[in-house]
Amino acid sequence: MASPTSILSLLLLVTAAVSSAAAVRIYPREHVVRAEGDPRCESWKFAVEVNAAGSWKTVPRPCIEFVREYFNGHRYLSDSRAVANYSLTFAYSVKLGKDHGRDAWVFDVDETLLSNLPYYRANGFGSKPFNDTSFNEWVNTGSAPPLPMSLRLYKKLKSLGFKIFLLTGRGESQRVVTQKNLLRAGYSGWEKLILRGTDDEGKKATVYKSEKRAELVKQGYIIQGNSGDQWSDLMGFALAKRSFKLPNSMYYIP
Amino acid sequence: MASPTSILSLLLLVTAAVSSAAAVRIYPREHVVRAEGDPRCESWKFAVEVNAAGSWKTVPRPCIEFVREYFNGHRYLSDSRAVANYSLTFAYSVKLGKDHGRDAWVFDVDETLLSNLPYYRANGFGSKPFNDTSFNEWVNTGSAPPLPMSLRLYKKLKSLGFKIFLLTGRGESQRVVTQKNLLRAGYSGWEKLILRGTDDEGKKATVYKSEKRAELVKQGYIIQGNSGDQWSDLMGFALAKRSFKLPNSMYYIP
Repeated sequence: MASPTSILSLLLLVTAAVSSAAAVRIYPREHVVRAEGDPRCESWKFAVEVNAAGSWKTVPRPCIEFVREYFNGHRYLSDSRAVANYSLTFAYSVKLGKDHGRDAWVFDVDETLLSNLPYYRANGFGSKPFNDTSFNEWVNTGSAPPLPMSLRLYKKLKSLGFKIFLLTGRGESQRVVTQKNLLRAGYSGWEKLILRGTDDEGKKATVYKSEKRAELVKQGYIIQGNSGDQWSDLMGFALAKRSFKLPNSMYYIP
Repeated sequence: MASPTSILSLLLLVTAAVSSAAAVRIYPREHVVRAEGDPRCESWKFAVEVNAAGSWKTVPRPCIEFVREYFNGHRYLSDSRAVANYSLTFAYSVKLGKDHGRDAWVFDVDETLLSNLPYYRANGFGSKPFNDTSFNEWVNTGSAPPLPMSLRLYKKLKSLGFKIFLLTGRGESQRVVTQKNLLRAGYSGWEKLILRGTDDEGKKATVYKSEKRAELVKQGYIIQGNSGDQWSDLMGFALAKRSFKLPNSMYYIP
């Protein structure tokens, strides 16, 4: 049997081939390298992604170009792919219950299943404070594309027999447009789409999402995996057995 | 008053100046860039640092050189500095109790206060499975240097009035050599050095460390901050108000 390390090496090699091709297509090589080599912004991103940075409202000015290149170049896709691959490796290791009915996977929506990159590309890549009005206008177009790695993972989890729950910070008023957008992006067959109701208003995302996960646990589900781009998707209580942090250095949700 | 964003921008600029100088000193520029530009290993590191990779025993073969350059070049120091700076920003924001006696900060030891880089440099930078015997021989020399950013943070926290607890996976048999090493590296004045006792043998690090933190809470301490290079230092129960994940892509402790 191949060892986990050799499987990983193979995954990395495949990733490299695909990623290099994508990078060449989008940017001249030296352009990509310049942003990658900026130690200030690499370390800012590190601190953000491991949740050491705490609450922040906008990308620091010296890193706006870095963030733009991260998302426009190959790196965002490559990081997303690595996390999706590890998620799937874990999913395969789960011994699903005989009735295949209790093993759940929780997905966040924005920057997890759906990508708001078209909006952020047109709005400075997190360099401006969050604008509720213009973001909701974008959401209401229902045209957010899928994150390709998440779509692939989603479909495989479904075929393995996981019950899929979508848990989003979006409000009930956006239920219809969110459903439409998800279907249009290629997602289907989820068990439940959970949005913020009137009772959840004003709650921090960590609390709201933990409470909703706790309800699932109370209903008998075993939350095996949880995928989200914010630590507030993954922390608190009623935690999944494994949590998968997707990259996002454009914005922070407490 | 300066906004948090402008303070951050300033920190980043200072970091950049110092880091660039360090990079030039250690490696020709193009050497650094090559390793940084490897998307396979950047994404592997991403997955490792956000704890999506789960348990792993050795650095994947294609990334050994990447890891070597990360630790030998400017990036390790730069990432450590970013996390230490955010830790300190948080520490300054804590309103310490009047008697300055209950606010605690928990530090891990290896790859948090002390650096085992001399050992890992001589032993393939995490490319070989962990060797208990040779690592303990190294520990018993008591010659691990401090992580410079952690030493700076440690001294500032102490001067602010935090009670400092050192919580390590090392065993009681290494108490004396660990104390000596810490003092030699410049650390002093901790409240307590907690090592694994006979009761703690065989426990996963997350459980052992959570139990020890819970004891501190029971004794009336408020664990404000917790610094560690492993997620098992930071997860579980009796969590700190803020947890600070330091970089470590050389090894994983479950």
